[in-house]
Amino acid sequence: MILERLEKVLKAMEKERLAQLLISDPSSIFYLTGKWIHPGERMLVLYLNANGNHKLFINELFPVYEDLGVEKVWFTDIQDSVEVLANYVEKEKVIGIDKNWPSRFLIRLMELKGGSAFINGSKIIDKIRMRKDEKEQDLMREASKLNDKGIEKLMALISNKYDEKKMGQMLLDIYEELGADGFSFDPIVAYGANAADPHHSPDGSTLKEGDSIIMDIGCVKNSYCSDMTRTVFYKTASEKAKEIYNIVLEANKKAIAAVKPGVRFCDIDAAARNHIEAAGYGKYFTHRTGHAIGIDVHDFGDVSSANTDVVEPGMCFSIEPGIYLTGEVGVRIEDLVLVTEDGCEVLNQYDKELKIIG
Amino acid sequence: MILERLEKVLKAMEKERLAQLLISDPSSIFYLTGKWIHPGERMLVLYLNANGNHKLFINELFPVYEDLGVEKVWFTDIQDSVEVLANYVEKEKVIGIDKNWPSRFLIRLMELKGGSAFINGSKIIDKIRMRKDEKEQDLMREASKLNDKGIEKLMALISNKYDEKKMGQMLLDIYEELGADGFSFDPIVAYGANAADPHHSPDGSTLKEGDSIIMDIGCVKNSYCSDMTRTVFYKTASEKAKEIYNIVLEANKKAIAAVKPGVRFCDIDAAARNHIEAAGYGKYFTHRTGHAIGIDVHDFGDVSSANTDVVEPGMCFSIEPGIYLTGEVGVRIEDLVLVTEDGCEVLNQYDKELKIIG
Repeated sequence: MILERLEKVLKAMEKERLAQLLISDPSSIFYLTGKWIHPGERMLVLYLNANGNHKLFINELFPVYEDLGVEKVWFTDIQDSVEVLANYVEKEKVIGIDKNWPSRFLIRLMELKGGSAFINGSKIIDKIRMRKDEKEQDLMREASKLNDKGIEKLMALISNKYDEKKMGQMLLDIYEELGADGFSFDPIVAYGANAADPHHSPDGSTLKEGDSIIMDIGCVKNSYCSDMTRTVFYKTASEKAKEIYNIVLEANKKAIAAVKPGVRFCDIDAAARNHIEAAGYGKYFTHRTGHAIGIDVHDFGDVSSANTDVVEPGMCFSIEPGIYLTGEVGVRIEDLVLVTEDGCEVLNQYDKELKIIG
Repeated sequence: MILERLEKVLKAMEKERLAQLLISDPSSIFYLTGKWIHPGERMLVLYLNANGNHKLFINELFPVYEDLGVEKVWFTDIQDSVEVLANYVEKEKVIGIDKNWPSRFLIRLMELKGGSAFINGSKIIDKIRMRKDEKEQDLMREASKLNDKGIEKLMALISNKYDEKKMGQMLLDIYEELGADGFSFDPIVAYGANAADPHHSPDGSTLKEGDSIIMDIGCVKNSYCSDMTRTVFYKTASEKAKEIYNIVLEANKKAIAAVKPGVRFCDIDAAARNHIEAAGYGKYFTHRTGHAIGIDVHDFGDVSSANTDVVEPGMCFSIEPGIYLTGEVGVRIEDLVLVTEDGCEVLNQYDKELKIIG
């Protein structure tokens, strides 16, 4: 266990008067132990108790032999894993449940009356994970530096020879060459009308003159994620496309300028959204302005109009406004920012002025 | 909606006296609608009601414009998605919950009293998915045929030039060339002592003479998965390694011979396990004998000593006994079987007799 982090979690539990917390998210277990364990559909639980009686419940299939500073309770495929867990929890007390714990486990724990009440306990650790310590900040910088290099190399490959899918495959080779550990998410490469779907999966589409090209890409390095988006145009861009591009770019810049400790996430969202709305494209900006990032590419916390939480130093999140005209064109420009004492550091340095390529 | 499948689910709900079922697993939603939607951390729910009032709850971010034969209820990132859902459920009745639904949604639905009780409802659809119809059976055969070709090509690449990770990367190219749609899971390529960890992640390890090489690989084709394992030895194999290999091979064959309608999954497990135990290696066979497979590489249902369910025609699962001597050697041999009227069809035809390569 990384004691400094464990202490923070125990302190937050005390503040919330929560005696016991069940953590199942592999990222949070990595955060607290330094160890990645991917249990697939098997149960994996780090159980924390205010009385210090912490346990790691783990299937024998995952041979984690090193001392993680927490006692391991092993079980096998033929045992009822939740029953094993239920023998250790304090049944007369409220138990905090991991937000991602599959319902099959929670329903079974409720059947076994493994707590006096079951609440979503993840905010306790998620809010701590939001504030990156200095070591983590360096890791975030490093991952984004690689991503800046990655987008540069990917840009150089743009051509009507390569379909979207091929671009994604070549990006994996680029990251490998740069020393990254892989994708932080399946990259989005979207041409023309495909760019108007914010979650388009790369397919066999090829470039046509005038297409917008969205590249939303990220890599992992030393367990920390990067994530950025650039949009460029192929050979030519219509006046409308240019107009949209410049509105999105200005929204991106305005949101970044709004980032500093003490502002609310919804204020940052508004900085981008108000600009796009004033330009008449409000209803085409269909998503939140950004999301927190760290060990997970989508860490807990988002930059949305619904989030009134306050920004603090060390937090890291994306700023990624977009405008999507269905069947026509899409533009998104995304950078990661790291909150400093009086503003923010932008982790992506790759140029974002309007570019026409090819 | 694929009406034949929907009917089966509604009939099973009736049999279980369950009025409403919430399905969130993208694979099950694909099974029922023919449409893949990957919502990431956003809520996606196909709500089925015995009264025919089915709905698909979907975030506006996922532009699914086609008619899926079920009314869509859209919500945005700034809405409480579970509250939107709770307006439609019958609060005074029991509600079946998807086994994989993240606890954050279930806990919120319970806060909103969105049902008189919350039970794991997934078995209803999972048991239907276990029995593949004819079209699905053909898709399973096709995916495994590609996998047979894939292992043949991968075998031909074995050399001390390539580390485990590189082998995994080359396998992706092989699948692509064969026309598969990608991995069904991250392949396991494990050399020597690494092979003694059943879930080893390929790393920079290279081959040494005498190493066992486990290749546990699978591809997806048309949304159906393959999965097979072969173990071979590099340049030479110790007597002990050969002994273990032949024990595992015999266990694999005995389990396959036991597969027919009417036997229990635990009986098939016993066929493999008893053989390994009798040979003195029982405690080194650390996992279940197999798992169901279909749209998911791990479908619901396993071949384990704890599963007393009865095998039926159309079911498809893996037979994959193994012996793992920590720090030394590992052997696993896996085939997929498809249950017929009086036995089973083995979907993997690639040779499994002991092989020494290089």
